[in-house]
Amino acid sequence: MGKKDITSNLYALFHPDAVAVIGASENESKLGFHVMKSLTQGSFSGRIMPINPGAKKIMGLRAYPAVGDCEEPVDLAIIVVPARWVPGIFEECAKKGVRGIVLITAGFKEIEDAAGGENQKHIADLANRAAIPVIGPNTFGMVNLHRDLNATFTPEFSGVGKGAISLVSQSGGAAHLLSFMAMRENVRMSKIIGLGNRLNVDFAQILPFLVEDPDTRVIALYLEGLDDPRKLKETAEAFRGRKPVIAFKTGESEVGDRASQSHTGSLAGKHEIYWGALKQAGIFPTKDFHSLLDLAKTLAVCPFPQNNGVAVLTAQAGPGMAACDVCEREGLEIVQFSTETQATVNGLLPPLALRTNPIDLGPAWYDSDALRGIIQAVMDDDAVASIILIMMFASANRMIVPNLMPLLLDWQQKKPVVTCLVAPPGIWDEHVMALEEAGAIVNIPTPERAAKAMAALYRYAKMING
Amino acid sequence: MGKKDITSNLYALFHPDAVAVIGASENESKLGFHVMKSLTQGSFSGRIMPINPGAKKIMGLRAYPAVGDCEEPVDLAIIVVPARWVPGIFEECAKKGVRGIVLITAGFKEIEDAAGGENQKHIADLANRAAIPVIGPNTFGMVNLHRDLNATFTPEFSGVGKGAISLVSQSGGAAHLLSFMAMRENVRMSKIIGLGNRLNVDFAQILPFLVEDPDTRVIALYLEGLDDPRKLKETAEAFRGRKPVIAFKTGESEVGDRASQSHTGSLAGKHEIYWGALKQAGIFPTKDFHSLLDLAKTLAVCPFPQNNGVAVLTAQAGPGMAACDVCEREGLEIVQFSTETQATVNGLLPPLALRTNPIDLGPAWYDSDALRGIIQAVMDDDAVASIILIMMFASANRMIVPNLMPLLLDWQQKKPVVTCLVAPPGIWDEHVMALEEAGAIVNIPTPERAAKAMAALYRYAKMING
Repeated sequence: MGKKDITSNLYALFHPDAVAVIGASENESKLGFHVMKSLTQGSFSGRIMPINPGAKKIMGLRAYPAVGDCEEPVDLAIIVVPARWVPGIFEECAKKGVRGIVLITAGFKEIEDAAGGENQKHIADLANRAAIPVIGPNTFGMVNLHRDLNATFTPEFSGVGKGAISLVSQSGGAAHLLSFMAMRENVRMSKIIGLGNRLNVDFAQILPFLVEDPDTRVIALYLEGLDDPRKLKETAEAFRGRKPVIAFKTGESEVGDRASQSHTGSLAGKHEIYWGALKQAGIFPTKDFHSLLDLAKTLAVCPFPQNNGVAVLTAQAGPGMAACDVCEREGLEIVQFSTETQATVNGLLPPLALRTNPIDLGPAWYDSDALRGIIQAVMDDDAVASIILIMMFASANRMIVPNLMPLLLDWQQKKPVVTCLVAPPGIWDEHVMALEEAGAIVNIPTPERAAKAMAALYRYAKMING
Repeated sequence: MGKKDITSNLYALFHPDAVAVIGASENESKLGFHVMKSLTQGSFSGRIMPINPGAKKIMGLRAYPAVGDCEEPVDLAIIVVPARWVPGIFEECAKKGVRGIVLITAGFKEIEDAAGGENQKHIADLANRAAIPVIGPNTFGMVNLHRDLNATFTPEFSGVGKGAISLVSQSGGAAHLLSFMAMRENVRMSKIIGLGNRLNVDFAQILPFLVEDPDTRVIALYLEGLDDPRKLKETAEAFRGRKPVIAFKTGESEVGDRASQSHTGSLAGKHEIYWGALKQAGIFPTKDFHSLLDLAKTLAVCPFPQNNGVAVLTAQAGPGMAACDVCEREGLEIVQFSTETQATVNGLLPPLALRTNPIDLGPAWYDSDALRGIIQAVMDDDAVASIILIMMFASANRMIVPNLMPLLLDWQQKKPVVTCLVAPPGIWDEHVMALEEAGAIVNIPTPERAAKAMAALYRYAKMING
């Protein structure tokens, strides 16, 4: 048995019917407590079996002394016991027929002591022989939101919305940060995976799985260093363009490089060479945590723009200008409208308004028909390949988004539409969220980030389609 | 009487005891309704007098047919009636002895019709003769959070926290966006001012006022175009370095320039020349809405770093590396610790950790004493001029920020400390907010933005002190 079997067991790992938590605890200072909380607090519908030789019940669930004592099959084992016990537990799991393991325990390859690396090699052999795919060790775990499965020590991951973006991270901190940001900005995810030390599930195993995963439309990677960039390159090349793969990579500074080396036991340097190779393989670079999420969100919803021509429609000139500045800087062209579109717009806006591209919608602010007429005309204009729609609103104009809903729902991203609809926190977000959930818009909280996301969408399309 | 008198009345404008709303209404489709809501929903302690010849009471308050009918003095008049009535109302206000006006009404200099410009000149003469400072026309109004005064048509402005940043904006949309962002990210403000068409209160009047204002520590400008950059330059030069003045300017793209011209009736171009002049005058440029707020927040709390040496302390390697990458790119140096500091850190972290700068606090995560010992040693290190502290936390480590509170409160920004303490939304933010309100930290939601803010703080200090 080899890697092929491991890969074929990945589905079971992410879709278990029965989960054992080896090291489950009711002691709040133990990770085994928080893993139990993550599993039980969500709406996971499968069986949960705490494993702890010293307990009869944990969080109201019957506990077992060992995984081998469970009467029923165990699909996924989550392990949070000290490193020295892990080899024995792997053997038990193999005997029990466990299909996948999340190994949260640290203290393997990442420690300076050579014994750590040897131990990791030893358990890798055990797992490979049994064809058990292992997420970790030294990981927070993984989340499959479509299965309501939170196999991590962070119950709050369950608060991320259910969507189409799968995040694969080499850093637990980065995955936590991105997920907390995602909650705040309504970025909806499919899977959140912390690769940890990558015992036998590395990018080369996880990417092909996610490309076939019907719940994943966009793959977002957080990279720090790569043991074997050629392998990632070859893996990604095989499905180049089938699903968008985008990445944010840190450790490009001198000190960052040192940090990476210590942290994941691999070398972060040589990033220029890496990026050249990764781009060839269709992996698109983003510049920071915000851009990774913004572009992932955009790719999950928007079709590709046919060219770099963009229309900027803005209810407020200032934020619109900020978007225009970014568009020009990032290679989008604020195109001229067709004579027909321009005539329609001129008929709906007074002469005092800016009626060419960018359009200042301000004067039509209280006239829903005019507003819809202008937006529709621009959407239908052949010269326009993408649209950025910007509106700040509050109680004096709270009907603005509901009034636009039918138009945006009907348009359904025939050309990419990125919006920046911003209201005071928590007040009318439900309309924006409903539009996002219907796939009618991608909403990004600042005009500059909205423009950057559209420009990145265009550049991604160009990279893939030439 | 001239500009001097106008300026001397600015204090009364921002600190009125009695406010008249000319055009107050109970009709929700009128701006006069929303202005009344803004004034009455907050905790403004002064008198509010709705002015409307057709009403006896508005929102439970006695209404007057005209401002002249009020028995008591009126300090501030907020005007929301159509433009054609404004000259007559200005004459009434002058007769009544009104000290300041917020003129929300549009339809003056910004319209293409030459009559708009003439009308504006006419009412400017009226206001100048009576020494009445006027915010507007064509503005959302202004907010003085320290007076609980929301003189705008957007009641939600009252939700911005009370702080030391005064925002002066040439765009209503930008001011709304920045305020909504501020609410989400706990950026606390002093005054929010929409200059509109700048009848007789322009940057040249408002900046000297804010420099003397004890409630303002940082002045943040949103600029689109300047009628008279020399005047702003001369104004700013006079108090260069007395209070930080930072700016974000749009309209730098070709189309943005056109948009600005139409929008505020002034020319946005020649930005390179502008920036050269503004920087000489001590006005510091920022690149986008996020950076404007992040730097304003930092300047409001942090002392200047003595040099470009920074320490990055991070509980999670990934986000820490992202910060290090930005530090190096933006001119900060990740300095080497003193032998003494290094020995202390080595004593508190196991060999497997990254113990040099950046420090991976991960292994000390559950040992509060070690965590505090490391941070204290780094703070006290002479080689370290500034500190970036990064931690993602959730329920498994929810005590991490409370444990650090005494240390951070005691340290009280002896050297600048910018943090990136990020938890899932709404869960333990109260500790972070308490630290921010005590002036002990500046918290910024991503590691890159935290590093950029620290780098900008250093560059600002260098620009001012040479």
